[in-house]
Amino acid sequence: MEHPFEFPLQLPDRGSRQRMAALHGQLRAAILDGRLKPGLRLPATRELAEALEVSRNTVVAAYDLLLGEGYIEARRGAGNFVADLAMRRSDRRARIDVSAADKRIASYWRSFTGLPRPMHVGTYAHDFRLGIPDSRSFPYDIWRRLSARALRNLSRSASLYDPASGRLPLRQAIAQHISFARAVSCEAEDVIVTSGAQQAFDLLARVLVTPERTVVAVEDPGYPPLREVFRAAGAQVIGVPVDNEGLVVEQLPRDANVIYVTPSHQFPLGVVMSPRRRVELLAFARTRGALVIEDDYDSEFRYGGRPLDALQTLDRDDTVCYVGTFSKCLFPTLRLGYAVAPPWLRTAFVNAKHLADWHGDVLTQDTLAAFIAEGHLVRHVRHMRKVYAERREVLLDALQRHGKGRLQVCPSDAGLHLAAMLDDAVDTPALVERAATEGINLESLNAYAKDGVAVNGVAFGLGMIDVARIDEGIAKLVRLVA
Amino acid sequence: MEHPFEFPLQLPDRGSRQRMAALHGQLRAAILDGRLKPGLRLPATRELAEALEVSRNTVVAAYDLLLGEGYIEARRGAGNFVADLAMRRSDRRARIDVSAADKRIASYWRSFTGLPRPMHVGTYAHDFRLGIPDSRSFPYDIWRRLSARALRNLSRSASLYDPASGRLPLRQAIAQHISFARAVSCEAEDVIVTSGAQQAFDLLARVLVTPERTVVAVEDPGYPPLREVFRAAGAQVIGVPVDNEGLVVEQLPRDANVIYVTPSHQFPLGVVMSPRRRVELLAFARTRGALVIEDDYDSEFRYGGRPLDALQTLDRDDTVCYVGTFSKCLFPTLRLGYAVAPPWLRTAFVNAKHLADWHGDVLTQDTLAAFIAEGHLVRHVRHMRKVYAERREVLLDALQRHGKGRLQVCPSDAGLHLAAMLDDAVDTPALVERAATEGINLESLNAYAKDGVAVNGVAFGLGMIDVARIDEGIAKLVRLVA
Repeated sequence: MEHPFEFPLQLPDRGSRQRMAALHGQLRAAILDGRLKPGLRLPATRELAEALEVSRNTVVAAYDLLLGEGYIEARRGAGNFVADLAMRRSDRRARIDVSAADKRIASYWRSFTGLPRPMHVGTYAHDFRLGIPDSRSFPYDIWRRLSARALRNLSRSASLYDPASGRLPLRQAIAQHISFARAVSCEAEDVIVTSGAQQAFDLLARVLVTPERTVVAVEDPGYPPLREVFRAAGAQVIGVPVDNEGLVVEQLPRDANVIYVTPSHQFPLGVVMSPRRRVELLAFARTRGALVIEDDYDSEFRYGGRPLDALQTLDRDDTVCYVGTFSKCLFPTLRLGYAVAPPWLRTAFVNAKHLADWHGDVLTQDTLAAFIAEGHLVRHVRHMRKVYAERREVLLDALQRHGKGRLQVCPSDAGLHLAAMLDDAVDTPALVERAATEGINLESLNAYAKDGVAVNGVAFGLGMIDVARIDEGIAKLVRLVA
Repeated sequence: MEHPFEFPLQLPDRGSRQRMAALHGQLRAAILDGRLKPGLRLPATRELAEALEVSRNTVVAAYDLLLGEGYIEARRGAGNFVADLAMRRSDRRARIDVSAADKRIASYWRSFTGLPRPMHVGTYAHDFRLGIPDSRSFPYDIWRRLSARALRNLSRSASLYDPASGRLPLRQAIAQHISFARAVSCEAEDVIVTSGAQQAFDLLARVLVTPERTVVAVEDPGYPPLREVFRAAGAQVIGVPVDNEGLVVEQLPRDANVIYVTPSHQFPLGVVMSPRRRVELLAFARTRGALVIEDDYDSEFRYGGRPLDALQTLDRDDTVCYVGTFSKCLFPTLRLGYAVAPPWLRTAFVNAKHLADWHGDVLTQDTLAAFIAEGHLVRHVRHMRKVYAERREVLLDALQRHGKGRLQVCPSDAGLHLAAMLDDAVDTPALVERAATEGINLESLNAYAKDGVAVNGVAFGLGMIDVARIDEGIAKLVRLVA
């Protein structure tokens, strides 16, 4: 799962002068309307230049202009920081001029400024960023060998018709894997391979949404890209609160047609949907003819406890579409996900996939099929589970010892991150920015709450952090809270 | 470009019994309503089983049932053929029961039975199938080496943020390649990498179409998947005739918002859009604020003549979005295409790509970037151009010598296929079916004409046919015409 952040930067124009102007303009606008708050440390020019793939000179020029105009200030040895603009707040003329305002473009895309791109590029002493698995110990040599073999096979008998649902060996491997690991009820012909879970959501949005009519209920706080995908398709998206049992089913809108849940490890709070809520949710879907999308995004990593089966296992009425991904247990740039759709939905789903991009990359599919069939996936996941489990233990311990009750950990027993709540008096976005200046990278939960649901807390990812850096990072963080 | 055929087969249900029933039912329905005509030879059971990925028993059982019911008949040594149903034509109760009729599915997808899947699986003595390049001499070893190198680089410095528009080295390589080869005006930041040209069309449909409002003009005869993509998005799609200068611009609907053209090599007729029509089309787009989508699908292969630059080169008003693909010059299962969008469209396009599937496969992109940068693409294309040019020459010669004026070749000087017109009296679909029984695989053009435009002819692909088999194939074909 990608981890969105608070600030989108898009440099649409060609030419270094236009790019500098766009960068300057967008930063200036965000400073003026408060999205970039006073005291925020801006990325170093080299890091931002790398992340945006522009020359360092472009970034330096933009920063120089902002410095000259008083929007940012330089603190010797520490970097550039957003200035306090008390005197300039009346100047609200700045608006982001995105070329997407052209009326030839459909209205959603005209106003959509993009999913936020992480502002905190660069390296941190204590990096708790979300959404990234640790791929340093991924067996790349094995992958390379299997990939070469797949290419040799393909070169000998080029397949002429590739089903949109995906290559059969991979679908077989996935079906076996999730039948065993998650008790998902399926065979190879039920599996549809997609370019990541994101494409599965996108295809579901297409086949399920009638613009202006379809109502989609999502967890709130929840996963922003899913919300955007359904909004882009013209659905009405409604957030439903989450408590310590997961989605509060009784607060679902009665006319919900689609319900998106992350029952194994709620994103971002981490709670597990209780058995009672699972039953209630399925009953709701059955009686109202709704479809439940189960996003099982990082269920490979479970820690102790008795793992709950997938929600889909309880489904006797074909109301659940199960979506999974390999991006948390392989290396992150592979785009491989899958869906197990109920029979009534499958044909439309596969047709939508076919029209969207014919079929997924064949070599990658064949390589992954062999990787799974030869047992490498299971071995790698088993190894990573130990690595993450250790980090989780150390993190929980550090939060316990240093936390002084200031950080309430949300119980969870799976996944690649933990969430912790803070007292309402704490300004969490400001805390996160200050933490960045101390070399601590983490996200606030507040950005994930959309429809007025109040949540005040932070999330700690386990993918990037070295186990030796956890304790000191938490200690520093708690000092900032105080 | 995929090559659609006349008959879709979808087996949505799990379980061998349900699959057999679905296969039987769909074949029976198609025989009853005439889509499968009397005398058509059905695929051998083994071939169909492989193509549909079901057990051979399933196909045998379906065929046995059809045999018993009198829908097909067996001719010893020749296979199974659709029976003459003169006596059974009153039985019209059969309707295809697709599970996509569920009302939870948006209406387009409920009625969409899928793009047709080629019926003519198997091997032919004279295989003129469309849409497949000859990848037998593709330098797979070089690709494997570059792929291994890309993986090594990735394992050392896993990139954390991949732009939705594609990896920079690939965008640079594409920009250089098409600036030189097609005179397309662009730099790396103008290029957007997509999962094949099909995804570029799909993303364009999303960002350009307001359901029930947007009007899309397409060439007729034309390319069916493009039509379906825009219909799926809710656009009104209108076919505009093509003559020997290409799209008849003066017959464009005045309110067209989007115009799709294949100016280098019209699909499927093969004509080149004349300079006069190009100027007219761009003037139309400029004055009416329309966007032109230029699909340059197999322009790598030009034969003699002076190659015309891309239409996009003439565009001074940002009205053209240029779409290209690598699927005709690499191996067919790679999904790599690209778009060069005008600045006002680019941001929305990239945002739509981001929401659709984040970004394309990184390893494949890096491998292709190196493949292009090291000159392998140019070398391979140069080699294949000679191969296809020879086949084209032999084909033109055979058509000239055997044709007896019965086949009028449509002039074209590029691409992977040729079209030839037949006299109106010839029943081309029947001819194509009879040709299949004689080991000749080719497509009729008739299926590509949608809005009442009459076209009667056949298309010959250059991708699969061995040069030694051309002459005999054409001779046999012409005998069948007579």
